[in-house]
Amino acid sequence: MGRLSVVGTSLPRVDAWDKVTGRAEYAFDVELPDMLHVKVLRSAYAHARILSVDTSKAQGLPGVRAVITGADMPKDPPLEALRNELYAVPPFSLATDKARYTGEEIAAVAAEDELTAEEALQWIRVEYEPLPAVIDPEEAMKPGAPQIHDDAENNIQYENRTEFGDVEKGFAEADHVFEDRFSTQLVHPCTLERTVCIAAFDSSGYLTFYDNSIDPYKQSRYLPKLLGIEPSRLRIVQKAIGSNFGALQGNLTPYIMCALLAKKAGRPVKLVYTREEEFINAGPRHMGVCYLRTGVKNDGTVTARDIRLITNAGAYGYLGPAMMTSGFTPCAGLYRCPNVRFEGKCVYTNTAVTSPYRSFGIVPPAFAMESMMNIIAEELGMDPVALRLKNITRQGDVTVVGQEISSSGLPECIEKTVAHIGWKEKRGRLPPNRGVGMACGMFDSEVRNAPFAGSVAYVKLLEDGRVKVISGEFEWGQGSRTVLSQIAAEELGVPLESVLFSELDTAAVPYALGPYGGGPVTLRGGNAVRLAAVEARRQLFAVAAGMLSVGPDDLELKDQKVVVRDDPVRALSSAQVAHYAKFILAEEIIGRGHFEPDTVMRDPKTYYGNYSSGYTFTAQTVEVAVDPETGQVRILDFASAIDLGKAINPMAADGQNEGCVGQELGPILLESLAYDKQGRVVNPNLVDYRLPTALDVPPITSFLVESHEPHGPYGAKACGQVSNIPAAAALAGAIYDAVGVWIKDQPITPDKILRALAEKEKREHAPA
Amino acid sequence: MGRLSVVGTSLPRVDAWDKVTGRAEYAFDVELPDMLHVKVLRSAYAHARILSVDTSKAQGLPGVRAVITGADMPKDPPLEALRNELYAVPPFSLATDKARYTGEEIAAVAAEDELTAEEALQWIRVEYEPLPAVIDPEEAMKPGAPQIHDDAENNIQYENRTEFGDVEKGFAEADHVFEDRFSTQLVHPCTLERTVCIAAFDSSGYLTFYDNSIDPYKQSRYLPKLLGIEPSRLRIVQKAIGSNFGALQGNLTPYIMCALLAKKAGRPVKLVYTREEEFINAGPRHMGVCYLRTGVKNDGTVTARDIRLITNAGAYGYLGPAMMTSGFTPCAGLYRCPNVRFEGKCVYTNTAVTSPYRSFGIVPPAFAMESMMNIIAEELGMDPVALRLKNITRQGDVTVVGQEISSSGLPECIEKTVAHIGWKEKRGRLPPNRGVGMACGMFDSEVRNAPFAGSVAYVKLLEDGRVKVISGEFEWGQGSRTVLSQIAAEELGVPLESVLFSELDTAAVPYALGPYGGGPVTLRGGNAVRLAAVEARRQLFAVAAGMLSVGPDDLELKDQKVVVRDDPVRALSSAQVAHYAKFILAEEIIGRGHFEPDTVMRDPKTYYGNYSSGYTFTAQTVEVAVDPETGQVRILDFASAIDLGKAINPMAADGQNEGCVGQELGPILLESLAYDKQGRVVNPNLVDYRLPTALDVPPITSFLVESHEPHGPYGAKACGQVSNIPAAAALAGAIYDAVGVWIKDQPITPDKILRALAEKEKREHAPA
Repeated sequence: MGRLSVVGTSLPRVDAWDKVTGRAEYAFDVELPDMLHVKVLRSAYAHARILSVDTSKAQGLPGVRAVITGADMPKDPPLEALRNELYAVPPFSLATDKARYTGEEIAAVAAEDELTAEEALQWIRVEYEPLPAVIDPEEAMKPGAPQIHDDAENNIQYENRTEFGDVEKGFAEADHVFEDRFSTQLVHPCTLERTVCIAAFDSSGYLTFYDNSIDPYKQSRYLPKLLGIEPSRLRIVQKAIGSNFGALQGNLTPYIMCALLAKKAGRPVKLVYTREEEFINAGPRHMGVCYLRTGVKNDGTVTARDIRLITNAGAYGYLGPAMMTSGFTPCAGLYRCPNVRFEGKCVYTNTAVTSPYRSFGIVPPAFAMESMMNIIAEELGMDPVALRLKNITRQGDVTVVGQEISSSGLPECIEKTVAHIGWKEKRGRLPPNRGVGMACGMFDSEVRNAPFAGSVAYVKLLEDGRVKVISGEFEWGQGSRTVLSQIAAEELGVPLESVLFSELDTAAVPYALGPYGGGPVTLRGGNAVRLAAVEARRQLFAVAAGMLSVGPDDLELKDQKVVVRDDPVRALSSAQVAHYAKFILAEEIIGRGHFEPDTVMRDPKTYYGNYSSGYTFTAQTVEVAVDPETGQVRILDFASAIDLGKAINPMAADGQNEGCVGQELGPILLESLAYDKQGRVVNPNLVDYRLPTALDVPPITSFLVESHEPHGPYGAKACGQVSNIPAAAALAGAIYDAVGVWIKDQPITPDKILRALAEKEKREHAPA
Repeated sequence: MGRLSVVGTSLPRVDAWDKVTGRAEYAFDVELPDMLHVKVLRSAYAHARILSVDTSKAQGLPGVRAVITGADMPKDPPLEALRNELYAVPPFSLATDKARYTGEEIAAVAAEDELTAEEALQWIRVEYEPLPAVIDPEEAMKPGAPQIHDDAENNIQYENRTEFGDVEKGFAEADHVFEDRFSTQLVHPCTLERTVCIAAFDSSGYLTFYDNSIDPYKQSRYLPKLLGIEPSRLRIVQKAIGSNFGALQGNLTPYIMCALLAKKAGRPVKLVYTREEEFINAGPRHMGVCYLRTGVKNDGTVTARDIRLITNAGAYGYLGPAMMTSGFTPCAGLYRCPNVRFEGKCVYTNTAVTSPYRSFGIVPPAFAMESMMNIIAEELGMDPVALRLKNITRQGDVTVVGQEISSSGLPECIEKTVAHIGWKEKRGRLPPNRGVGMACGMFDSEVRNAPFAGSVAYVKLLEDGRVKVISGEFEWGQGSRTVLSQIAAEELGVPLESVLFSELDTAAVPYALGPYGGGPVTLRGGNAVRLAAVEARRQLFAVAAGMLSVGPDDLELKDQKVVVRDDPVRALSSAQVAHYAKFILAEEIIGRGHFEPDTVMRDPKTYYGNYSSGYTFTAQTVEVAVDPETGQVRILDFASAIDLGKAINPMAADGQNEGCVGQELGPILLESLAYDKQGRVVNPNLVDYRLPTALDVPPITSFLVESHEPHGPYGAKACGQVSNIPAAAALAGAIYDAVGVWIKDQPITPDKILRALAEKEKREHAPA
């Protein structure tokens, strides 16, 4: 492919200028003429029967233009038709007979201003019959627990079980069997931006939403069915996104409320969540309890694994089952162990509907698996690095769950991070209360989660030689538009600033799947954009060949000019050619790229299959100091290496790597979305919910390992959602190395360390 | 092509509902956050040197955010580069050294509200040195007339002369030579909507205009050059148009003022003309003086024509020369006369820049030519109908100016209107003061006025089986979107209401030329849409064939289903196929149509060439009663027949035909944009400017003649801009038949009739 000039270069993000100057247009900034403001009345109880809702007084308040309750929902939405696509059906509705978590929507008001809408909520009378609530998924499964949904026995929304190889035989072959329980808590991504939804009908009955949702295409497919609108009369325009990380991915309730209110009031409406609403309603990452057994030989060879995972779906089923199961395959694929069993239960609880938050569901099992690898190494007297190198999946492997490892730079990731931290010199040899830890991770670069699991893009050469990329791939803040623009710039020989990206309007851009998997925009979208740009270049050469009376093969692209190779004084600027094509030939130069990876859908029962065209790997090492008096953990150094195939924009990839680690330190050490016994969130604000600040984030050294994935554009695969996977286990390992206790329950707070140290003390001083 | 189901049917216009309910979004309705309002300070003099402009006090007024004058114009815009494309360069600027008509832009203010902007104008001090002004083009050419532009001797902006055959020989062969002077006045289209321009820069320096201009693509090509912006950073979004008819076609000054103010203020700005500004600034139809000589044999054969036309450009040259010359070719082509000379002069005057107003410049020469045909018939004692039938161009002819007449229904048009009015029984035989008249007309169906003179369209089958037409063709209120939608509906077998039309956004839709010529949207745009729809249908069949495991040729379209012809129970709805294509194959069904007619650009010197792929004909008859006491003309009956090839929507075509006649009755009988000696418009309002009301419009009977134009879609050609061409001559002929006087100077007002009757009386009673 010759020397690359834009791809592989660290360039500022294309949206950086707008974002740092505050001029990027967010959904919050959208103001429509005559727009009303929406406020939502939410359940005061975690679990209660709703006996009546009286909105008559609110409706009479001056300035109130529409009030809706569950009774206004379209009758008989075809939920059955959606059930298959959505795993399980959340209500996407206002509560009617029952509220199942504190914060569930009961009624909504559209008024001339926010204060009036707010006031109107106080005039809505709701009669409740409170019911006992349950927050913990293991409690919820117990006999006698409050029954949240009539059709879910023991509150189990979904369970599955799959086995590869012969797990019992594997355990029989093992010299040692380790067994433990690990757990993770409810945490919230706390996106910078709050949920915003604007709905406006035009005079022809077309419905437009302006939003900051992360998956407008998904919404645009389901909403017409739920609202009874012809699909092509509904469009979603995604504005700039103030980060997302997966929170409440595809929650349709705000859309439905806004559409119903806009219809009823005959005016556009805008809903902006308060920060408190974000905490109580926008989806937290589920909690996960993982019972793990691992069989291992004396030499460290892993022979069997038995994973039992319990997660909470929240009050309604939506992505819970998908999140619970999707973490399993990368965990199973990371090591060569041939005998693996997975048993999962996704359980209803009286909390907000849970949602993915970076690396779709893998955190609970990965924390368990990697922590246990460290425990095994310790118990066998092996170096955790050596234990990994003995067992890890290698390039060319087909894993136990069917992943075809077409590239892996994991050994190099391990090597780089281990060298950086000074592993050999430090492990077990640091002064008291200091320690090092390490862990590895694997994640899908993309995932086949739909019959079509590729990407389509158009690349257009504009009349002045600038380039427009038309793609439905989403920019969530991860820099995907920058990467796709770099690819278009590379192939059409223009500087990055000459590339323009289409607005994401579902009525205008091609269908896209959204970034499911670690960084599918780069892999899938990048391939599509590259193919489109190559086709646009072919058209450019064809037009220029006609203008210059030469063959297309006689031409080359140089300094934004199409040049006759053997006679370089004969040249036309790309702009001249594009202008001629548009205005003289009326043949726009526009290439289409259609990329579909050679992957398969995971078998829905067994979960077997090569569902991604590339897998991303990571290794991390960390050095900590633990204060045994206070239990405080101080991170002295952190190294994170990702095998991303090829860094299209190293600076952006480093940013993803560092940002991902920095953010995950919150769930690991600080954060917990806490519910009281009545099922109310006790810390729904940024004072009581302890998010890491810049001061909490240690120095992080990022390594980018380029293994050249054959299926990716320029060899690239994902880099956005892998660095958070091993961080907790690496940190737990370092804490053990420092003070000799394993913390198996996130967050790893000082009180847990102190309690563990006290227990250790007690054990050591107990009579033999 | 089989039986047509949508094409050829009278269906309500697709935009009718929005328009009658007031819900169509006009540029006036666009409200942007933080938008400022613009007011313009205009020259108080028709001709004056500007000694100074002091805006300091205005700038200091609270609420004023930006003030611009000519000094703020981009320096050295590449006017030379534009000169060729624009015939001559209008200032597209605020006046600097000199103002050349009352109402010319001197300064503009953007303020928080209109009243503040208005007030600020009063604080701008302009020092003028008044100069003598000239309004009449013949006066302006005289020695000693005020010199409006330094480089235009005798104020002549442009002149040309062309001759076909041998005119002197033609006159020599004639038995009679007729010679006369005819004239038309300045009139204003008085569009329902006023000029609106909104300019907004986004954070990345992209400039968007929302407007009601009639030619966004033209503006979008010139404005970047004038503003120094990369072309692809500027787009124009055309909102619904409240009629246009050509007024100030492509005037760029409002855009430039708004762009400069938006830039200076850092906020969006909106300019809305007052009705007075419309009258004094938005282009009126030029006045035309036509000196015409016609040689004719005793049998009525026309042997030679000599046309001398003088028109006024207004204060600056823009479309003046084009309008002056473009009327010539259809006039020359209507009859078979082989010897024709044309001499034109376009003259600067101290009036607003003139602009086309229905049928681009043809009204002055057509009024002369058709009036003279009636005079000749009278003088030769022939029936005007017989004189026409003897001389008219027929299908298969190549006219003296090179038009290839591929279809003509003119004889049938004559026959229908003559029969309707009762010509044979009535002409010369009606009671005193009643009379009938007739005249004919010809116009271009489209015109090659650019190197590419075709149309490009995309037709997309949406996921629910609805159809989207993506075209840059403009809807000015003539119903073009309805016609194009009908064509798409026809080819894809859906009802009209299932077709959706793209918004006209120059950054999103393919390049289009605009409706130059009588109805090019139907001919050019219709062909493009048809080709695109046929291609979309091909793709639909290809996808369905795959789904049904049959060949595409085994399929047919029936009731919005793709059906296996020999096994009709095997069928898929179009929606199913489109959904599958979009979401499973990720191959949208989208056809592209590219149509370019086989025409040539008229030779710029001789004006020879077959510049249109079809020519539209019309014949009209009228019966009047003239009150000899008051000079009042009452129209008793009016018949207008147009040969439009094929009526795609008969109801809409009838509307065009009737509307065109009804509107032109204003210029013929009532209207005149009057200037006083100081060059000020004396009637810039709808009270003093006498527009015909519904009560002034007589019963009009519309005939649609279908000659099946081989180059048009389904045989269609134009119908929008031809019915106004012969109306004045037909009316003048009827007045002659009623009271025996020829009025050769529009408008045909009672005072002129009374004067002519008095002169006739004098002549008849004069001693022999």
